[in-house]
Amino acid sequence: ERVTLDLDRQRRCGFPEVIYGDGKPAQMIAAIIQSQQAAGQPSLATRVAPEVAEQVQTQIPTARYNPVARTLTAGVADAAPPSPIPKTQDAVSPDAGLIKHVAVVTAGSTDAPVAEEAIETLHWMGIRFRQFDDIGVAGPARLLAAVPHLRQAAAVVVIAGMEGALPAAVGGHLSVPVFAVPTSVGYGATLGGLTAMLGMLSSCASNVAVVNIDAGFKAAYLAGLVVRQLERST
Amino acid sequence: ERVTLDLDRQRRCGFPEVIYGDGKPAQMIAAIIQSQQAAGQPSLATRVAPEVAEQVQTQIPTARYNPVARTLTAGVADAAPPSPIPKTQDAVSPDAGLIKHVAVVTAGSTDAPVAEEAIETLHWMGIRFRQFDDIGVAGPARLLAAVPHLRQAAAVVVIAGMEGALPAAVGGHLSVPVFAVPTSVGYGATLGGLTAMLGMLSSCASNVAVVNIDAGFKAAYLAGLVVRQLERST
Amino acid sequence: ERVTLDLDRQRRCGFPEVIYGDGKPAQMIAAIIQSQQAAGQPSLATRVAPEVAEQVQTQIPTARYNPVARTLTAGVADAAPPSPIPKTQDAVSPDAGLIKHVAVVTAGSTDAPVAEEAIETLHWMGIRFRQFDDIGVAGPARLLAAVPHLRQAAAVVVIAGMEGALPAAVGGHLSVPVFAVPTSVGYGATLGGLTAMLGMLSSCASNVAVVNIDAGFKAAYLAGLVVRQLERST
Amino acid sequence: ERVTLDLDRQRRCGFPEVIYGDGKPAQMIAAIIQSQQAAGQPSLATRVAPEVAEQVQTQIPTARYNPVARTLTAGVADAAPPSPIPKTQDAVSPDAGLIKHVAVVTAGSTDAPVAEEAIETLHWMGIRFRQFDDIGVAGPARLLAAVPHLRQAAAVVVIAGMEGALPAAVGGHLSVPVFAVPTSVGYGATLGGLTAMLGMLSSCASNVAVVNIDAGFKAAYLAGLVVRQLERST
Amino acid sequence: ERVTLDLDRQRRCGFPEVIYGDGKPAQMIAAIIQSQQAAGQPSLATRVAPEVAEQVQTQIPTARYNPVARTLTAGVADAAPPSPIPKTQDAVSPDAGLIKHVAVVTAGSTDAPVAEEAIETLHWMGIRFRQFDDIGVAGPARLLAAVPHLRQAAAVVVIAGMEGALPAAVGGHLSVPVFAVPTSVGYGATLGGLTAMLGMLSSCASNVAVVNIDAGFKAAYLAGLVVRQLERST
Amino acid sequence: ERVTLDLDRQRRCGFPEVIYGDGKPAQMIAAIIQSQQAAGQPSLATRVAPEVAEQVQTQIPTARYNPVARTLTAGVADAAPPSPIPKTQDAVSPDAGLIKHVAVVTAGSTDAPVAEEAIETLHWMGIRFRQFDDIGVAGPARLLAAVPHLRQAAAVVVIAGMEGALPAAVGGHLSVPVFAVPTSVGYGATLGGLTAMLGMLSSCASNVAVVNIDAGFKAAYLAGLVVRQLERST
Amino acid sequence: ERVTLDLDRQRRCGFPEVIYGDGKPAQMIAAIIQSQQAAGQPSLATRVAPEVAEQVQTQIPTARYNPVARTLTAGVADAAPPSPIPKTQDAVSPDAGLIKHVAVVTAGSTDAPVAEEAIETLHWMGIRFRQFDDIGVAGPARLLAAVPHLRQAAAVVVIAGMEGALPAAVGGHLSVPVFAVPTSVGYGATLGGLTAMLGMLSSCASNVAVVNIDAGFKAAYLAGLVVRQLERST
Amino acid sequence: ERVTLDLDRQRRCGFPEVIYGDGKPAQMIAAIIQSQQAAGQPSLATRVAPEVAEQVQTQIPTARYNPVARTLTAGVADAAPPSPIPKTQDAVSPDAGLIKHVAVVTAGSTDAPVAEEAIETLHWMGIRFRQFDDIGVAGPARLLAAVPHLRQAAAVVVIAGMEGALPAAVGGHLSVPVFAVPTSVGYGATLGGLTAMLGMLSSCASNVAVVNIDAGFKAAYLAGLVVRQLERST
Ligand SMILES: Nc1ncnc2c1ncn2[C@@H]1O[C@H](COP(=O)(O)O)[C@@H](O)[C@H]1O
Ligand SMILES: Nc1ncnc2c1ncn2[C@@H]1O[C@H](COP(=O)(O)O)[C@@H](O)[C@H]1O
Ligand SMILES: Nc1ncnc2c1ncn2[C@@H]1O[C@H](COP(=O)(O)O)[C@@H](O)[C@H]1O
Ligand SMILES: Nc1ncnc2c1ncn2[C@@H]1O[C@H](COP(=O)(O)O)[C@@H](O)[C@H]1O
Ligand SMILES: [Mg+2]
Ligand SMILES: [Mg+2]
Ligand SMILES: [Mg+2]
Ligand SMILES: [Mg+2]
Ligand SMILES: [Mg+2]
Ligand SMILES: [Mg+2]
Ligand SMILES: [Mg+2]
Ligand SMILES: [Mg+2]
Repeated sequence: ERVTLDLDRQRRCGFPEVIYGDGKPAQMIAAIIQSQQAAGQPSLATRVAPEVAEQVQTQIPTARYNPVARTLTAGVADAAPPSPIPKTQDAVSPDAGLIKHVAVVTAGSTDAPVAEEAIETLHWMGIRFRQFDDIGVAGPARLLAAVPHLRQAAAVVVIAGMEGALPAAVGGHLSVPVFAVPTSVGYGATLGGLTAMLGMLSSCASNVAVVNIDAGFKAAYLAGLVVRQLERST
Repeated sequence: ERVTLDLDRQRRCGFPEVIYGDGKPAQMIAAIIQSQQAAGQPSLATRVAPEVAEQVQTQIPTARYNPVARTLTAGVADAAPPSPIPKTQDAVSPDAGLIKHVAVVTAGSTDAPVAEEAIETLHWMGIRFRQFDDIGVAGPARLLAAVPHLRQAAAVVVIAGMEGALPAAVGGHLSVPVFAVPTSVGYGATLGGLTAMLGMLSSCASNVAVVNIDAGFKAAYLAGLVVRQLERST
Repeated sequence: ERVTLDLDRQRRCGFPEVIYGDGKPAQMIAAIIQSQQAAGQPSLATRVAPEVAEQVQTQIPTARYNPVARTLTAGVADAAPPSPIPKTQDAVSPDAGLIKHVAVVTAGSTDAPVAEEAIETLHWMGIRFRQFDDIGVAGPARLLAAVPHLRQAAAVVVIAGMEGALPAAVGGHLSVPVFAVPTSVGYGATLGGLTAMLGMLSSCASNVAVVNIDAGFKAAYLAGLVVRQLERST
Repeated sequence: ERVTLDLDRQRRCGFPEVIYGDGKPAQMIAAIIQSQQAAGQPSLATRVAPEVAEQVQTQIPTARYNPVARTLTAGVADAAPPSPIPKTQDAVSPDAGLIKHVAVVTAGSTDAPVAEEAIETLHWMGIRFRQFDDIGVAGPARLLAAVPHLRQAAAVVVIAGMEGALPAAVGGHLSVPVFAVPTSVGYGATLGGLTAMLGMLSSCASNVAVVNIDAGFKAAYLAGLVVRQLERST
Repeated sequence: ERVTLDLDRQRRCGFPEVIYGDGKPAQMIAAIIQSQQAAGQPSLATRVAPEVAEQVQTQIPTARYNPVARTLTAGVADAAPPSPIPKTQDAVSPDAGLIKHVAVVTAGSTDAPVAEEAIETLHWMGIRFRQFDDIGVAGPARLLAAVPHLRQAAAVVVIAGMEGALPAAVGGHLSVPVFAVPTSVGYGATLGGLTAMLGMLSSCASNVAVVNIDAGFKAAYLAGLVVRQLERST
Repeated sequence: ERVTLDLDRQRRCGFPEVIYGDGKPAQMIAAIIQSQQAAGQPSLATRVAPEVAEQVQTQIPTARYNPVARTLTAGVADAAPPSPIPKTQDAVSPDAGLIKHVAVVTAGSTDAPVAEEAIETLHWMGIRFRQFDDIGVAGPARLLAAVPHLRQAAAVVVIAGMEGALPAAVGGHLSVPVFAVPTSVGYGATLGGLTAMLGMLSSCASNVAVVNIDAGFKAAYLAGLVVRQLERST
Repeated sequence: ERVTLDLDRQRRCGFPEVIYGDGKPAQMIAAIIQSQQAAGQPSLATRVAPEVAEQVQTQIPTARYNPVARTLTAGVADAAPPSPIPKTQDAVSPDAGLIKHVAVVTAGSTDAPVAEEAIETLHWMGIRFRQFDDIGVAGPARLLAAVPHLRQAAAVVVIAGMEGALPAAVGGHLSVPVFAVPTSVGYGATLGGLTAMLGMLSSCASNVAVVNIDAGFKAAYLAGLVVRQLERST
Repeated sequence: ERVTLDLDRQRRCGFPEVIYGDGKPAQMIAAIIQSQQAAGQPSLATRVAPEVAEQVQTQIPTARYNPVARTLTAGVADAAPPSPIPKTQDAVSPDAGLIKHVAVVTAGSTDAPVAEEAIETLHWMGIRFRQFDDIGVAGPARLLAAVPHLRQAAAVVVIAGMEGALPAAVGGHLSVPVFAVPTSVGYGATLGGLTAMLGMLSSCASNVAVVNIDAGFKAAYLAGLVVRQLERST
């Protein structure tokens, strides 16, 4: 009764309302998914604790839980877990028939949960992706090796904690929007991700936009919208 | 001598380096523009004070200064000042041959300088735009009237000070990326734009990405990249 | 012995002292309630943990605990749990014999505990109310549907987390005070409710006053005072 | 052209849009006032610099400027400057035919400009008021002397800088809403008014709501709405 | 071995080094106490968890633990727990043979742990005290009743959370130093005690000095030094 | 008219109200001084700009202005400017008939204005003092040389900017209260004095109390109260 | 698979990549150590929880865990735990054949875990060290006693919480770089180490550089680089 | 008289006290320089305004002012302005007889004043240097080109504003200490240099130490100490 679902969002925004799982009891999440299923809309719930997910799955057995991403999905077109475009499938020119996709990049291996949330979001949207993990700026060869692949993406999600320097370094090589996600990885002066967030907002690269700390969902959603619009226009 | 110009940026990023005018002496700005002209690249300098602009124009008479935006442009394809797509030219379906463009929206009339910087940036990129001014959330009819036009844009720049509520309200009506620019308009609890910036990052709308306070240039650049990629792919 | 109760507050302020339950041992809360009962004053304790409440109820069996609101009430005129004025009972003109009441509005379903605290406070004051849940700005039709009802309230409590945009959007439709409650719902840039709080203070709507984060009690108390004064003056 | 005036606000909110003067050129302010005059609406502009005011007055000679409040008013019902209800006119019982009014209280003599903005706002709304100046908590006799008068007001505006302790002290004596305005008076740890603002939000008094730093306009507007609703209901 | 004890402090400062218990293992605390006992110095340890205290007491059975204050004391002149000067023992003139003492005042009953730490510190110093509890500014009669007693103290410790208004209100009645302790009592805008701390530093009363949040020990130590110097000089 | 002077403060607090000069027009300051002179009370105004002081002196020719301290004094017992107790007059034992006095210590030569405000305050109170300038911790011999003198003072004011380390270093040598004044001297991470203020509050020395940034007046007032009480009790 | 190890770092930087253990599962840490061992590189993992360490040790039995430092080391040249240069081995002149080493200094005994992390880092680098514990500024004799030894070190690590005053006091005695580590020891105004960090950055001593809060690893690494370069150059 | 000069610092620290010019009158600066000249010590004053410098030069005509760095120097061994080691003089191996020196690197051309302060400091110390300007991370080829030269330096100063990403990128290529200077270049989320400062402290590179915002002097002093110790040890 406390819920006023926005079923019209799919018409207005292209995708249904996403369920913000944090603080919601399992029965509320299950009820929302059921309403969305009745309306023929795929469901994505973020920030769902494992024990809550389990309870939801009792009611909705088809719901899939990703314990790293802490996401629940149900009614998604491709029922399998998300899988990236292989890097062997590359094509040199970004215009030559390459699959339109999003690149998801992390600075450190500890940023993995945020990357998983991004990937689950793209999968729910039906958008293809590639992954580039642990390529932070202190080991410069790693980014340089990835650049030729990164230049084939239609939009890039860059996930980084600590000082958040990676989006600027990535952005300087590319001609597409970079959606930067600061993470809460680090201690002391990282201020729980605020330092990375402020750094990304202050970036000297022109093509870097920022979303909330740990908001893998949001950056992926925005990158997915860029790809979807490209797909529609061709 | 203190300058190491990045003339290769146009190749990597699609557009040349933009000159951050704040704190640079006029002769330095002029020298950079001349290097760019020699390389056949159009120039955009942001945050240029009127007296500095005047000095630069003595050396580069073709440079155009916009005193509201505080920008200098030179060598831009369309030498005239930027002019918006008229709203009478609308087409109901976003797919039916409409000119691909960016919508630039302000919440209050005091946000105008930031909107002007955005518009000059789009003009320098060769990207078309439309303007929607002073449509903040406290007067809701104003946004509702704009929605049908806004739904025709390929990307939207929303500029707002005070609590920065407008991007979420706009985003909830659209299926394209919204690039939100917090402004330093306001006093006290607005903290010089930080409150709006934090609010936009915390937005409950899924399609809102954020750039630095007063960074009309950055939001426009990102929105312009979205449009440019669409143009290329069709 | 550590307590100096202010039993005169009812005379000065119209209502007795409210017990701030956080950090108080059960026997202290029970003792205060007993003093208030001896003085014929109804009791409201906020921020009471379930296990503390249970202990208090052993001593004061008539005390009612609301586990969502985390409030204890005792000696309240209407002993039943609070129930809203039905929305079917509407009257078009706000002056035509409508019951004077407070509207309690939430932006998201996760804001429910704060709304419950507000409602328990109104009930303790003997003030009537209506509820409007989960009508955040990203789904604009939900607020528009509520506006005709909201215009019948004598004061409005708006509860919102994340960027806290809802009070400005609500305020722009109304001619009565809006008491805005920022909530600690959200993560990262929401700064535990500070962002919503600062945003509400910076609001471009003229009729928005703000109380502390998660302070459903305070906003309801203020709104209740407005209604009570109206009742007295007629 | 950059302005989208909300002339419907008077119908929705009871009073017209107020002009936020900071950063607006004189001709823009004058044009808005003219539009409001054409619609038969009284005008109030806040945060207007003296030199801007003078330019506006060249075009609109009937506009009155208050240099302490930095407000411009035009088309207001009572064309004279605001004058308080004399304190000799008191009546012991708040219900016995006393003029419904707002009390405007300052903690120190340096808070005067904010009080003046509040008073001009009440005058523009057609609401009566009383003034109590320089009665900060360090000299306790001053508040105690004012209490009997303060208890006759229907709503109270309390304006205080430094630690902002006055609203709690005032609130503890009253049964009506207190709208607290933190001011930027002070230095060092006052953080330009943030300390007072946070203190007022943390207030141990139940009936204190807070508005932005130095926002005399907002507190007065809210207090005025309380009085207006009382007047209408009797 | 990791400890370099400052046994000379008693000579320089009048009292021995106080043990900061937080984060120290029990054997380290016990070792320090033993060194101090060997040197004939009384011991005070603050911020000691109950389980750590128990372990220390196994080694030093004469050590007394106060679970509210979380202090351990050993070797103190007066081995009994601290007890206040009765209020019946008052003398109207502060100069007429009254026992030199410190008044310890709290704003709310939740501030008790900090007051207990202050009292244990005074007891360890051999300084007499009186207690005034729960006399916050929202119930003004409570402070006024205490003022005649407060005026007999040689120094005053005022402990308050939330907005921290009490020290200014107390200070305005007195001619001796007020040592203000902000507490971490409250939520939201209280920022864990920072708001009270900043408010106390911004105080409009001239005789208010401030110590760290929850630092009952420090305020009592400073007040105790004032009394001790008075005792020595007479 | 905007002023409600607290002439009773001398009786309650031992000294009259001090005039906070910042933001007060000259005629208001002059009027307050005249009221205090009529009541036989000495006047001290702090934070008075030179041009305001000059105007006040036109009306009150006996008022003395200290342009470094930015203070105005009038009606003070000792009409000459303040002069310190010479250091040659020392006595080894603090109890052997030494003049009771305050030591005023600065860390750097740039802290001089704050020291001057402290000294003028002591002079207005009729309290003797000694000065120790520019003895910051990076040059340790300077403090060690001053310690024997410092140990003769009844209370110490320590004024320091940057990291504010001096009060802890001074406090560790003394058995009397240290009133620490953080100053706004420094740049960047000093945050306009906040860093020194927070550091002083976090001090590992037990006898350090803190006042507002640059508040030489407050620290001197507190130290002066300690001396005055000693004088009275002997 | 989520790891992209930077094995080339030893060549570029002189030492291999250090494993940031926080948030990494045991198998990931073990896998990285194994890769480093295969490449003949010694391993250091910081911020490893005891239970994670135990799991890693099941796979890599030669790995040594320091539970105070929370570090894991493997493949280090000197397999024994680190041991300091004895202080009896001193030599008066810093140039006369003294072993090049780092001095590791703490202000309080609670700073031990950070000192241990520093020492393990030096040991992994093969750099010698000396320890000076618990010599904070409030007990000044302790630092003075250490100075002659400190003057023999080639670089100094100073670890301090609370107000972080020690690095400035140490730096003022030395002609080598001081690497200051703020710690999260303290409460209230220490802001979890931010106050010490800001204080150290604001230091009045010229030779103080700062690293992140609790980052014993970083300060030791920097000091170790200074020693290593000295060793190489001689 | 307000000055207590620390002439012993040269003996203890290797270099004399540096004059912090901000807020000091010209005659005070001149007097300090004269005392240092009498003691045979070279003088460096930082943060000296041009008009103050001019006055000092009237009294000390040999003093040299650098208007970009805002430094005054006098009595320095090499009386000519500082000049860098030419890059043509390179040697591939860092051990092969290269001049021991410091590399001074800037991210943008607007960081020049801070670089100049660093260079003047090195010159006053008698330390050689090289310059690398405007090589920020958004144009990656610029840093890669500089790396072979940077690897020849004994210590590196990296100066960067905005997000402060450059020190991490530089540090990842080097085996010597990097002293990072955040600058106040930028706007909005850069928070006057705090964002860069926090980012540098959070750096994922192991060899980055940080000094205060705009503190070119400090970073150069530290780097100079590293070089000086190397010179002494060979
Ligand atoms: N991880 C997330 N971060 C931010 N917003 C989210 C997240 N997941 C869902 N949302 C948004 O939260 C809104 C739902 O909020 P609620 O009504 O509280 O369930 C939807 O509009 C989503 O766009
Ligand atoms: N208004 C602006 N806001 C943020 N970045 C800018 C702006 N104008 C130019 N830039 C960026 O600043 C960089 C140039 O900085 P600099 O080397 O200091 O001239 C370029 O990479 C631009 O992308
Ligand atoms: N002093 C003030 N403080 C806060 N809001 C104000 C003030 N004056 C006017 N406003 C609001 O600002 C809005 C107009 O903003 P704008 O469109 O920028 O002119 C109106 O809705 C007013 O309610
Ligand atoms: N420099 C100062 N810093 C803080 N408080 C001050 C200062 N000078 C005067 N005051 C206090 O300010 C109060 C007067 O404020 P006001 O009523 O605004 O004039 C007096 O109670 C003084 O104790
Ligand atoms: Mg890694
Ligand atoms: Mg407007
Ligand atoms: Mg919802
Ligand atoms: Mg006053
Ligand atoms: Mg109470
Ligand atoms: Mg000095
Ligand atoms: Mg110790
Ligand atoms: Mg550049």
